[in-house]
Amino acid sequence: MFSSKSLSHGGNLLFASREFNRSDFLDYSSNINPLGVPLEYKKLIVENIDKLASYPNIDYIELKESIGSYLNIDSKFILPTNGATEAIYIILQQLKFKKVLLPVPSFSEYENACKNFGVDIKFQFTKEENNFQIDVEDLVSEIKNKSVDAVFFCNPNNPTSQLIEREKLIYLLEVAKENDVYVIIDESFIDLIENEEEYTLRECVKEFDNLIIIQSFTKFFAVPGIRIGCAICNNELVTKLFDVKMPWSINYFASLIANVLKRDSDYVINTKAWISEEVNRFYNELLKIEGLKIFKPNTNFVLAKIENENSDSKSLRNALGKEGVLIRDCSNFKGLDNRFVRFAIKNKEKNKEFIKKLQFVVEA
Amino acid sequence: MFSSKSLSHGGNLLFASREFNRSDFLDYSSNINPLGVPLEYKKLIVENIDKLASYPNIDYIELKESIGSYLNIDSKFILPTNGATEAIYIILQQLKFKKVLLPVPSFSEYENACKNFGVDIKFQFTKEENNFQIDVEDLVSEIKNKSVDAVFFCNPNNPTSQLIEREKLIYLLEVAKENDVYVIIDESFIDLIENEEEYTLRECVKEFDNLIIIQSFTKFFAVPGIRIGCAICNNELVTKLFDVKMPWSINYFASLIANVLKRDSDYVINTKAWISEEVNRFYNELLKIEGLKIFKPNTNFVLAKIENENSDSKSLRNALGKEGVLIRDCSNFKGLDNRFVRFAIKNKEKNKEFIKKLQFVVEA
Repeated sequence: MFSSKSLSHGGNLLFASREFNRSDFLDYSSNINPLGVPLEYKKLIVENIDKLASYPNIDYIELKESIGSYLNIDSKFILPTNGATEAIYIILQQLKFKKVLLPVPSFSEYENACKNFGVDIKFQFTKEENNFQIDVEDLVSEIKNKSVDAVFFCNPNNPTSQLIEREKLIYLLEVAKENDVYVIIDESFIDLIENEEEYTLRECVKEFDNLIIIQSFTKFFAVPGIRIGCAICNNELVTKLFDVKMPWSINYFASLIANVLKRDSDYVINTKAWISEEVNRFYNELLKIEGLKIFKPNTNFVLAKIENENSDSKSLRNALGKEGVLIRDCSNFKGLDNRFVRFAIKNKEKNKEFIKKLQFVVEA
Repeated sequence: MFSSKSLSHGGNLLFASREFNRSDFLDYSSNINPLGVPLEYKKLIVENIDKLASYPNIDYIELKESIGSYLNIDSKFILPTNGATEAIYIILQQLKFKKVLLPVPSFSEYENACKNFGVDIKFQFTKEENNFQIDVEDLVSEIKNKSVDAVFFCNPNNPTSQLIEREKLIYLLEVAKENDVYVIIDESFIDLIENEEEYTLRECVKEFDNLIIIQSFTKFFAVPGIRIGCAICNNELVTKLFDVKMPWSINYFASLIANVLKRDSDYVINTKAWISEEVNRFYNELLKIEGLKIFKPNTNFVLAKIENENSDSKSLRNALGKEGVLIRDCSNFKGLDNRFVRFAIKNKEKNKEFIKKLQFVVEA
């Protein structure tokens, strides 16, 4: 009844509700802004509901302009997509790579999409002793060895919450450009770190025609149900990717997000404040729980390792599920195993409740 | 600014508003149920707006069950998709046909999707003297000649509004099955004809493993902005197509349509009544206009040919656009030329207004 896809991602509430026989959860399995759907966005949906009777604009001209303005980049570099996922799929469909270098653990859809389009994969296994930080030198070596024609990773990475410094990535881009290798960086969580401007590479698409940035707006704006993201790359590549994109893949309500993408809105300001206060506070609370190794997070989720040998990711997920708390069992992430779990970070109040239940279950 | 995709479909209101410098139109260019977005559906969206903060269910289990119940077919035969378009794209991506037979004129996305996936096309040009009816005998000959491995068409066809009898299609299916040829029938408008049950082939998927039916729910329920459709085929094929489908492509609000898919609802009953009263009445009114040849419609749109040699599809579209009426210029449909236009059929009141303006412009 449920496919293997159901089991390979967090946030599957229907599955969890049947599994644990309850409908209300403290959902720490999916990494969504706890501020919830922006009020202004809800108003827009209600006000424009009759416009569903029209086709969405096939070129998403207004949406492109708003995204460009929000990301501080010319709209000609923007290709809006049905979530970050459509960007991943279109890139692999159109650019027809032979072999892609994938650092792992990471979001499983890079691997799935490669398989769907018959692209070979070379995995780079990051190391626990380095906090699963992606080793840029290793990526550079592979590129120089001409063993791959593209590198695909996430920054900050999911599920590790690790971040790569800008300087290292610029160096990677330069080497990749010399070797005609594409670099695709999924920045879906980059607006949920402190000092986004110091880390994003989106403006580098002006200089590097081998760079594609993927962005999602649904984590930050808490609307994964609406499906909206984009690819950011040079204009020639935007056109090439648009050519194979199926028409109208972005629904009308998703295009309304354009009206919410404003840096000076209360929602954005409050979200940034939450990140800067709560990520470290939550991390420090987690450190107090015995039996868990916590990897220092950079964004709104945290990777943990279960040190108690009598427990594992499945049993911890089950024990918490019975308490009405969902977490992400990371055993199906390539490069991790059944000792790893991921927790979302929510607001202070929920985090306190979560910590209490986690402590109860882990130290029981 | 606008891509070529903007020009190749009806219903592009943003494009038209810039072209004709006005925002309100009598839109006869896109074929949407004039009853508008169902009231019950609007209520559901408003009531469930906060659920946007959750991921859509990746397997769409409840949606499949509702679609199955609405179409009177077991849910195991159903693959929900992001509009009919995603079904077209997934089929071509996964089944890797070498050459597809496409009767034309028809919906241009079959051709575009074939091109995107590198599939060769053999066009079957239907004839004006046969009212552009698809010649099933010709399709059968091509299949017997082993010149193609799939046939892709729309029934009733867009933009011709022509319908193929069930018996002929069953014969086609049998020959195709003997020759290992897939038959893909887009039935996106079949619920907008009279006697749908006499024409749909959806239940034949139980018997024919070479048959795929595509269905859209957004024409009938007037929600093209929401993006919801499905493929109907044998269960093994459903699984195979699901394998390459990108996750979460259907947004949460689209999945709410499940609650509206009820045969005995006022909306469905009123829509069926409108079709049975208005299609023929509108056709008979159109026949009274001099200078237009009208092809008898079977569904909620009608193909017309401009007989006046001083006019063409572009000039008629422009003249009506200035009067605030949008029609579909069919000159870019392969197999038609700059003498053909398509009109949607709306409710009686709007149709009267349309006829008046059309008559004024054509007979001017």
